[in-house]
Amino acid sequence: MSTNSFKGVFPYLVSPVTPSGEIDEPVLIRLCTDLIDAGVHGLTPLGSTGEFAYLSSAQRRRVVEIVLEAAKKQLPVLAGVASTTIADAVAQAKDYQALGCSGILAILESYFPVSDNGVFDYFSAIASAVTLPVVIYTNPNFQRSDLSLAAIEQLSRIDNIGYIKDASNNTGRLLSIINLTAGRMKVFSASAHIPVCVMMIGGVGWMAGPACVAPRQSVELYELCEAKDWDRAMERQRALWSLNQVFAKYNLAACIKGALELQGYPVGPPLAPQQPLSEAGKAEVKAILERIGAL
Amino acid sequence: MSTNSFKGVFPYLVSPVTPSGEIDEPVLIRLCTDLIDAGVHGLTPLGSTGEFAYLSSAQRRRVVEIVLEAAKKQLPVLAGVASTTIADAVAQAKDYQALGCSGILAILESYFPVSDNGVFDYFSAIASAVTLPVVIYTNPNFQRSDLSLAAIEQLSRIDNIGYIKDASNNTGRLLSIINLTAGRMKVFSASAHIPVCVMMIGGVGWMAGPACVAPRQSVELYELCEAKDWDRAMERQRALWSLNQVFAKYNLAACIKGALELQGYPVGPPLAPQQPLSEAGKAEVKAILERIGAL
Amino acid sequence: MSTNSFKGVFPYLVSPVTPSGEIDEPVLIRLCTDLIDAGVHGLTPLGSTGEFAYLSSAQRRRVVEIVLEAAKKQLPVLAGVASTTIADAVAQAKDYQALGCSGILAILESYFPVSDNGVFDYFSAIASAVTLPVVIYTNPNFQRSDLSLAAIEQLSRIDNIGYIKDASNNTGRLLSIINLTAGRMKVFSASAHIPVCVMMIGGVGWMAGPACVAPRQSVELYELCEAKDWDRAMERQRALWSLNQVFAKYNLAACIKGALELQGYPVGPPLAPQQPLSEAGKAEVKAILERIGAL
Amino acid sequence: MSTNSFKGVFPYLVSPVTPSGEIDEPVLIRLCTDLIDAGVHGLTPLGSTGEFAYLSSAQRRRVVEIVLEAAKKQLPVLAGVASTTIADAVAQAKDYQALGCSGILAILESYFPVSDNGVFDYFSAIASAVTLPVVIYTNPNFQRSDLSLAAIEQLSRIDNIGYIKDASNNTGRLLSIINLTAGRMKVFSASAHIPVCVMMIGGVGWMAGPACVAPRQSVELYELCEAKDWDRAMERQRALWSLNQVFAKYNLAACIKGALELQGYPVGPPLAPQQPLSEAGKAEVKAILERIGAL
Repeated sequence: MSTNSFKGVFPYLVSPVTPSGEIDEPVLIRLCTDLIDAGVHGLTPLGSTGEFAYLSSAQRRRVVEIVLEAAKKQLPVLAGVASTTIADAVAQAKDYQALGCSGILAILESYFPVSDNGVFDYFSAIASAVTLPVVIYTNPNFQRSDLSLAAIEQLSRIDNIGYIKDASNNTGRLLSIINLTAGRMKVFSASAHIPVCVMMIGGVGWMAGPACVAPRQSVELYELCEAKDWDRAMERQRALWSLNQVFAKYNLAACIKGALELQGYPVGPPLAPQQPLSEAGKAEVKAILERIGAL
Repeated sequence: MSTNSFKGVFPYLVSPVTPSGEIDEPVLIRLCTDLIDAGVHGLTPLGSTGEFAYLSSAQRRRVVEIVLEAAKKQLPVLAGVASTTIADAVAQAKDYQALGCSGILAILESYFPVSDNGVFDYFSAIASAVTLPVVIYTNPNFQRSDLSLAAIEQLSRIDNIGYIKDASNNTGRLLSIINLTAGRMKVFSASAHIPVCVMMIGGVGWMAGPACVAPRQSVELYELCEAKDWDRAMERQRALWSLNQVFAKYNLAACIKGALELQGYPVGPPLAPQQPLSEAGKAEVKAILERIGAL
Repeated sequence: MSTNSFKGVFPYLVSPVTPSGEIDEPVLIRLCTDLIDAGVHGLTPLGSTGEFAYLSSAQRRRVVEIVLEAAKKQLPVLAGVASTTIADAVAQAKDYQALGCSGILAILESYFPVSDNGVFDYFSAIASAVTLPVVIYTNPNFQRSDLSLAAIEQLSRIDNIGYIKDASNNTGRLLSIINLTAGRMKVFSASAHIPVCVMMIGGVGWMAGPACVAPRQSVELYELCEAKDWDRAMERQRALWSLNQVFAKYNLAACIKGALELQGYPVGPPLAPQQPLSEAGKAEVKAILERIGAL
Repeated sequence: MSTNSFKGVFPYLVSPVTPSGEIDEPVLIRLCTDLIDAGVHGLTPLGSTGEFAYLSSAQRRRVVEIVLEAAKKQLPVLAGVASTTIADAVAQAKDYQALGCSGILAILESYFPVSDNGVFDYFSAIASAVTLPVVIYTNPNFQRSDLSLAAIEQLSRIDNIGYIKDASNNTGRLLSIINLTAGRMKVFSASAHIPVCVMMIGGVGWMAGPACVAPRQSVELYELCEAKDWDRAMERQRALWSLNQVFAKYNLAACIKGALELQGYPVGPPLAPQQPLSEAGKAEVKAILERIGAL
């Protein structure tokens, strides 16, 4: 397993939490095992869909431990590190490296707006704290500050910052990033982009919630893209797009947890006060899963 | 010349205005003639880049007349109709049909937010007023109201509304529209999307300012897309993207008028109080034009 | 009648338009006459509520003529001048001065964002074109560009720019403007501010839609403020606030036209595709008018 | 000391953290003691300015302990409880009650948007978990979700939710809340409102960062308001406003920590990657402090 050339389909894992606040190990193990069997190329605990923003430090650490245990070093595990402060983020990153992760998905949380200097300080501090490859993450929908192209360019010059995951819906920005960083930073698509388009412009795969509920379909789509069989890829993409689309409509964690419940994984509801997927949402998700053969 | 199957490269034309407020006929004729010689598939006066929002009714009408004269019925002319009121939009549309346009690009201006009912009333009234094909246009960056998917679906059921131009940067939304309208509405890309990606997901071409300054390169790119020669298309796209990218950075009209001045078309500055392209902007645009062979 | 010390209650007038597109002179005359009888201190045609953005040049001019006729030089008429271009705004301002207006309410429309230089050029050109006092207007809710404090400071140094109407809901910004311009610019409240608060911090009155439907109550409130009888002013304000509040909830023109219809003025609906006040909206407005004694 | 009728000036306290991550007890004690000597009516640790979003649970708890120790039960201490989850917020609230706080300032953090049901669940769960009075807090500038008037009305019917702190700059919204909740919910002003205006419309005081650096001036202003000596209050307010205004310009924590450093409190910089107040910012804050007699 090479850890410095991540590519392919990396499902964002949900974080199943029992009513008493424990991470539900059996269900998370089973989900990871099934995803591995379906051929996914990596596992990503603690992304947005993984409710990192709703878990305590102890809960987050436990999620990482369980996913690593399930992965059995068969495929890379990239754990989300997210904080408002450098000190806390560095501590998380070191800890996840010590636990055995293959890479870090670095997320900047904030309450007040952050200057480009602050952005650079945060991500470069994480990169310095570990020897693992780092994926920088930006989500303008749910975060206060987007990474500027200037900051991305500067960060791309740090050795172990080799990837970016931009969760906006602006695909052109990804092409700008690819042009700007000239190979120093590889791009992963998010569920708000069309994966086939991102692959065509030079992306290396996708990290996304939908891959968690449609892993086989996602892997097939990826393989068609890798083979540059664009026509058949687009045919698949067209059908799968409804799944990505529904993610933008509902609370991400509620949506994917609801979908997994329909598939027989008792992952429970998102953490309160987040509301579970509504009945209308469940019906919509169910219809989509059936249509794409994921139920 | 078929007027009901628009496809290909439709440059958004600038509106050159003399200091005394006249539309500069010779320069506009020359620009149109050169674009036609370069192989573009249609002409679009009075889009955003055409400063429709800055021209009087008489100036707008004059722009349309001149473009029609230059087009000599060799290629379709789709004129922008834009207003805050139905009454005024309908009058413009009828007038442009009478002048000889091949289609209408329908734009909804507003001061107060518009409900979906209002949106439907506006576009359907324009469509009813003419027999020409209508392209509906939405630009969430510069307009107060974006068209909802529900409104688009409803509008797609009107016979002569056959096209949509969405000037957001959200390419996934275009795929959603294509899926939703099931062939009843064809999609044109904007300069904020990556044209190759839009073509790949099922688009039929693009209406965009950059095509006005790089017509030959745009037509070549379109032909590679039509031939599904995606690898070579992406190679061209990658280079041309810098031109699209710079459009998002500066005032659109200032940017394209500045670029055309560099190419020897004395189109003048955008209408005041819009500021002309800054010296830094000119230098940036010049470098890009040189790099892509458009200067 | 002094024209260079505007103060008091200036109702924003609606623009009644007949189905055939004529300005309805009798109803507009009657409305103005009743407002004058109720003691208002000035009349303001062609503000936001006056649907300036939905009227043709000829319709706007006609509104101004009628209001001037109704005013009979008994009180100042401040007409709204609004455009995207300097040339058009200057033409309007000169025309309204020639017609006999006492002042200009200057509004900057835009499609593309405007730089501070553009903002300054626009307002200073209007001020230079007339000898009348100019009120600069800014409405961040419906316009693309808010006036920066720096631009306001610069504009306040122009002789005949003596007033500002800021239609945000940020009352603190008004105090910042008052402090910054040190008496060179007087502040009028909008319906989104609490008039009593604006009077207390140094404002000179208000220009607002609600004054059009509750003129007597507004004048009484103003007089209590002028007398610095703050306790009784606040008592009135508390009741009247519901009227201001409902304005933020519905389309402004629909709301005030609906209220005037309830009061017996057949002003008609707002211009399509704006929708008339809904039945629920009418019921809410009716209840408020009854509660404050305006029906 | 009555704990169920909070009113007056409640400074938002900064959280001084040593380089090794400890809360700096001596400097926090000294700051609190000086504020008490200056006559403030309560102390509020862990508001926005207190960097709650940047501190660990242990650091937050320590801040509360130290402030309680400094307060010596002479005045109410209202501690900020902030979380994305109900479970964590309830735990914090119970803990702060057990430590001896007089009230809870309840803040809803979120990553994904929260529905009104989620908002109600969150705040009502906190209120049920303690017997203390609860102040609900909303800050549309830095939080993803503003409290709707409907949610506020519903929450006002819970016995121990008796106060609201709205940190928008929309003063009219405060009057709407006061009218809507008919005495069941008292309103505290924020630094983005003009305190005198909020007092005039029925507010009971203010919780704000500026009170931390200008406590004497703030208390004098409050007393003039309580005496309804509005003219003299406005005179003071006018001068003090520049302090509120500068808070909107810089990172809140950087701004107030920088001001306190100038006053001789070695509170240190805000937590990284927040940047300390710039040299220009320091000069501006220094000039204001000197002008208002706070240096």
